[in-house]
Formats: sequence, C-alpha cells, structure tokens
Amino acid sequence: MKYLDVDDIKRIATGATMLGAGGGGNPYVGALMAIGAVRENGRVKLYEASEIGDNWLTVPSSMMGAPAVQLEKFPNGIEFQNAFSVLEKKLGKKVQATFPIEAGGVNSMIPIMVAAKTGLPLIDVDSMGRALPELQMSTFSLYGHDASPMVVADEKGNTVLLETIDNTWTEKIARAVSVKMGATAAVASFALTGRELKEAGVWGTLSLCQQIGRIIESLNTYPSTKAALEAILKLTRGFYFMSAKITDIVNVTKDGFNFGTTKLEGIDQFAGKQASISFQNENIIFKMDGRVMITAPDIISMVDLDTLQPMTNEDLKYGKRVRILGLPCNAKWRTQAGIEMVGPRYFNYDVDYQPVEDLYDSYTDSVKK
Amino acid sequence: MKYLDVDDIKRIATGATMLGAGGGGNPYVGALMAIGAVRENGRVKLYEASEIGDNWLTVPSSMMGAPAVQLEKFPNGIEFQNAFSVLEKKLGKKVQATFPIEAGGVNSMIPIMVAAKTGLPLIDVDSMGRALPELQMSTFSLYGHDASPMVVADEKGNTVLLETIDNTWTEKIARAVSVKMGATAAVASFALTGRELKEAGVWGTLSLCQQIGRIIESLNTYPSTKAALEAILKLTRGFYFMSAKITDIVNVTKDGFNFGTTKLEGIDQFAGKQASISFQNENIIFKMDGRVMITAPDIISMVDLDTLQPMTNEDLKYGKRVRILGLPCNAKWRTQAGIEMVGPRYFNYDVDYQPVEDLYDSYTDSVKK
Repeated sequence: MKYLDVDDIKRIATGATMLGAGGGGNPYVGALMAIGAVRENGRVKLYEASEIGDNWLTVPSSMMGAPAVQLEKFPNGIEFQNAFSVLEKKLGKKVQATFPIEAGGVNSMIPIMVAAKTGLPLIDVDSMGRALPELQMSTFSLYGHDASPMVVADEKGNTVLLETIDNTWTEKIARAVSVKMGATAAVASFALTGRELKEAGVWGTLSLCQQIGRIIESLNTYPSTKAALEAILKLTRGFYFMSAKITDIVNVTKDGFNFGTTKLEGIDQFAGKQASISFQNENIIFKMDGRVMITAPDIISMVDLDTLQPMTNEDLKYGKRVRILGLPCNAKWRTQAGIEMVGPRYFNYDVDYQPVEDLYDSYTDSVKK
Repeated sequence: MKYLDVDDIKRIATGATMLGAGGGGNPYVGALMAIGAVRENGRVKLYEASEIGDNWLTVPSSMMGAPAVQLEKFPNGIEFQNAFSVLEKKLGKKVQATFPIEAGGVNSMIPIMVAAKTGLPLIDVDSMGRALPELQMSTFSLYGHDASPMVVADEKGNTVLLETIDNTWTEKIARAVSVKMGATAAVASFALTGRELKEAGVWGTLSLCQQIGRIIESLNTYPSTKAALEAILKLTRGFYFMSAKITDIVNVTKDGFNFGTTKLEGIDQFAGKQASISFQNENIIFKMDGRVMITAPDIISMVDLDTLQPMTNEDLKYGKRVRILGLPCNAKWRTQAGIEMVGPRYFNYDVDYQPVEDLYDSYTDSVKK
C-alpha cells in the first residue's frame, strides 16, 4: 500500500492519456476532479492487486459516454454515491474497494475521486491496460464475468439498474441511457471478488501510468526529447512510428461515441509520407502510405512533438506537430477471444490483427531493402 | 367482481381502440395475446375499483414503444414476469393486482394476459381513460405519483430498474431503453396502494370499452349504422364530426414513436371539405378546412364508415372511407395541470385547448348561420 498525493495524480493522468490511445477523456479535467477530491478529503490509499483480500467486493468506478462531452459536464460525486448505493442494495453487500475500468485521462481519475470521497481503498489494476470504447471490451468479459448487475447514474439523481443477459446488451442499453442522461453518465459495474479481480484484471496499470507521467514531467532532466521518448518506449515496450503534422480532422459525436479520422503528413525524416488514424473514441487503426502500421488492441498514441504530452482526440488541432507511438497491448488481449472482441474486424476493418512489434519490424525491414 | 370471457376480451379490444385515439396498438394482436393466455390459464377476474383493498399493492402492466413495431414483436409473458419480479424485490412486497395504464388495442389487453398468466385480479380502472403517447401522461402524475421505481424488460431476459427524479426523466430514459430493446418493451411502473389508485385512476374504463365493443359487435341488430353510431355517442357523450376519404398518410417511426399526419377529403354531406389529423402515436389535433375541431386530451377517433370498427394509425389506407368522432376526455384532464400535461401546446401546436363539446357547438352554430 502507498499513498497517492497530488503530484502522483497529475502523473497518472498524463500516463493514462498515453495508454488511452486518443480516448479516455481529458487528463486536465480528470486531474482537476481527482485533485479537488483529495484536497478536500485527504490522500488516497493505493493497494497492489496482491494486497487485496480474496473475498473483498470490488467495483470499478467509471464514466460512460462521449469524451467530448465530459469536458462540459463535470461529475459532482453524488452520481457515484448513488450508483454504489443502488448496487450495494442489489448485492446485499458493501463495496470494499474501487479501481479504474480503463486507463484514460478521466476514467483513471474517477476512481481516485471516488476513493477520496468514500475512503475506499484504490487498487492498482484495471480491466484493459488501455482505454477502449465499449463496455463489454474488458478483460473481465474474457474471463466470463458479467458487467451486470450494473448501475448507470447521473448528477441529477436518476439511477438505472441493469440486469442483462450478456455484456453486449449491457453496452447497448447503458449507452442509450447515458446518451439520455446528457451523453455521459457514472457507471458501477463488474462487481467482482478480490480473487476474480486478481485473475481477470490487468495489474499495475496505475503505476505504469505514473511512471510514464514522471518521465514526461521531468523531460528537461533528459539529455534530449529523444532520450525521454526512448525511456517511455523502453518502459512500455513500444515503438516510434512517425513524426507528422495534422492536416485534417473529422470528428462526429454520434450514438454516445466520438467517431472520426485524423489525417497526417510526415515531417522531418518522415517528410512526404501520408498517414491517417481512425477512431471510435479510441484510435483503432493507423496507416502510413496506405499500409496498416498499428491496429487495436495495440495502443496507437499521439504525443506532442516537443513536450511528449499525450493527446486525446478532442485536443487535435490543424497544423499541430505530433509523434505517433505504437505500444503493445496487454497479453490478455492477444488471444483469439481478445482479438475477436477488440481487434480491427470488430470495428469493421477488413484487416487481420498483427502485433505492433511484427508490423514495425516488417516495415523497417522493407525500408532497409 | 365478474369474470371476463373470450367474447368480453374481443369487445374490450374494440372499445379500447376507439378510446385509443389512433394509438394504443393493434386490437387484433392484443386480443389474440390475451385470448391465448385466457384459453391456457382460465378466465380473468375483473374487480371494480370500489372492490379492491386500500392496502393492496397495485401495478399496471403495459407495453412501451412504437405501436407499428408491436405488430411484429409479440410479448411472450416472460418480460412481465421478470418486470414484476424485479419491482417486487425492490419494493419488498408482492404485487396484488394489475390493471391497464391506458385504453388501447394492446395496452388494454396486456394486463388481461398478465392477470391470466399470474392469477392476479384485474381492476376496472386505468390512468388515462384513453391512450396517450408518453409515460408521464397519466392521471397518476396529476396526483403527484412517481412512475418510478419502474422496470423495463424485454422478451430476451434483460431488465432495467429506473429510479428517477421525476416522471419526465422516467419517460426519457425508459423510451431510450425500449428503443434499444427492439422499439417496444414491457413496463411495470406506478406502484400504488389500492387507496391511491381509487383516488387517482379513471374508473370503469374497461367496462366502457366493453360496452362500446358490444354495440359495434351487434351493429346488425340496430336499425341503421347511424343508430348504432348514436348509441356509441350517447354512451361516450361524443360527437360525430365528419365522414371522409383518406387521401394522404405520412407516418414515420422515430425515437420510439410513430409521428404523422393523415389527410382527409369529405364525402357525402361533407363533400368538398378538407381535413387533417396529426398524431404522435395518438391523434393530437383534428382540423377541418383549417379550423381546429378537436384537440388532445379530447379523443379523436377514426372509425370505418360502414362497420364503425375503430382504426389505429397503423391501419390507415389510402382511399379508405371513415368517420371522425370526438369524445370528451375524463374530467381529470380538464384541469390546468391536465391541459399543461397533454394539451395541444405540449405537442407544440400554438392552439389553446377548448372542450370538444364547445368546439362542436360553435362549429354547428357557424354552419347554421
């Protein structure tokens, strides 16, 4: 167990945005919210997954909805209090710890806020090791766990308890509810025992985010931006694909998601190359000169060319200069069931998943020839 | 208490369609469903409102959604069993009787099916005395009762328990859920005590439907169609406005509703007159030669010219010859709160509500001059 202070929270927000792959919500908004709660209620206790009891009732706290809207609609905490209370009544048991459902600028911060307000322990685990757009896209689903009974709640006091036949139905219905609640809503789902969480979760995601954030925060202590970038790539086992300028952005909020495509033009040693990233909240596919370079579930991250600050798809601006990174996803996703759930074909791309390291190698080989 | 047999059910379905004002669902589908349940499980006991206990827990059973879709999606009963069971768990009490939320070809039949399948008493009461398109449009709302806790359930086994801050939020969220469940879903809402139901409900709606249905069924025992029509108008205190031919139908299913306008051309003594009826599931406003003749909450009914069979807005056919009737709504609607909730302005018509009898009188006066 360790305590998280305000600086830790900022670092986690930064790192989570990198793993957020363009989605997961705005880290500035997320951090403000979590820091406010910690300032008011005191520091949060972060437990390693190995430290929690097998019989604890653990419930992730998360926001559902289009990240573009979360900027305008700040959760006030009451929605999580209500969501937990309805779920506890349903289960006849008190929630004993919370954790993030995913890595993301907002969704990594929400459980910190909840932990601060409720005094619940926070666990260093999530259910993706990245951010993903749909509710059933969780390593918990891969282990056969149901998202339901699940509660969706808004800041006005409305709550909705779902009991569904599978996680795809939970996603469908909860998404429609969150749209009506103002395009974003609080969610308490996937109530698991400590033992189930240890087996089905991705361990150490918050710590990894914190380490990434620390490198970016201390960029000026590195001999060069390149050296800091290399430290990040070593930590995440990732690859640097391209530096580029944003030349076009299409971004539409529809059915509770942000959909879009970002067009890029290579700069520096990548000058002359054309590239694109398509997203559904999160970046799904990255192509360079028509060639598929990275696909979900591997993580397609865009960072500022100079500061290495990771960007969400709401931060995109015409002319902005960025770097494209590809980070391998958690091994739990690299299974047949994982690829079926979150691979490119699920998102309607006629492309087979190939690990980012293979795509990177075959591309650099082809360049050498 | 009396028993309802198969013929009673058919009569109720017919009469409920007249009070359904173009909405409320297809009476043939509704009757099939209720008759099937009665044939399988035995007759249903119909109680007068005065006969039920003050402390009974009463819950209406209804379908929510676009009537056009209900034709294709037959409820199998399990959705109501699940909806009641979730609501009972929430309230910690067993439901002791059920009743229709509104008069309509489907929604008057659903509680008969539920009563037959569960053995629960059916109460001769509803919460509208007609059909209305939105969930908060209920005399129960006028008496300050909440629709929530409310359960929406589908035939697959998905259930959603809503606890909302007001009935407008219940409508919004439940509508979105019902759309995702396939545009129509089972609803258990407005859990009331017997005493509350007696105060806030519209008494005798099922009996009234049955009497209307009996007149239409025995049309050939009347000296003329006109005589049978007069018997209906006497029973309902209604007015005969026009006979006409349908010349145009616009009908769009959107956001869980059927929206549209029916254009009519007068025939017989009404030849030369142009008229229109606009609807949102139910008919909202009837105009003749540009003059407003009937508005919600009074009941705008279209019946077959010859058979007097009432028609829903899914039965409309180009060239069909019909009669337009205007029936006064229940007195509970003719209050300021009632008119605000379901009057023409709520449906975005820039028209003040005037009682159908006044509009009829001033029209016939103007014709005489």
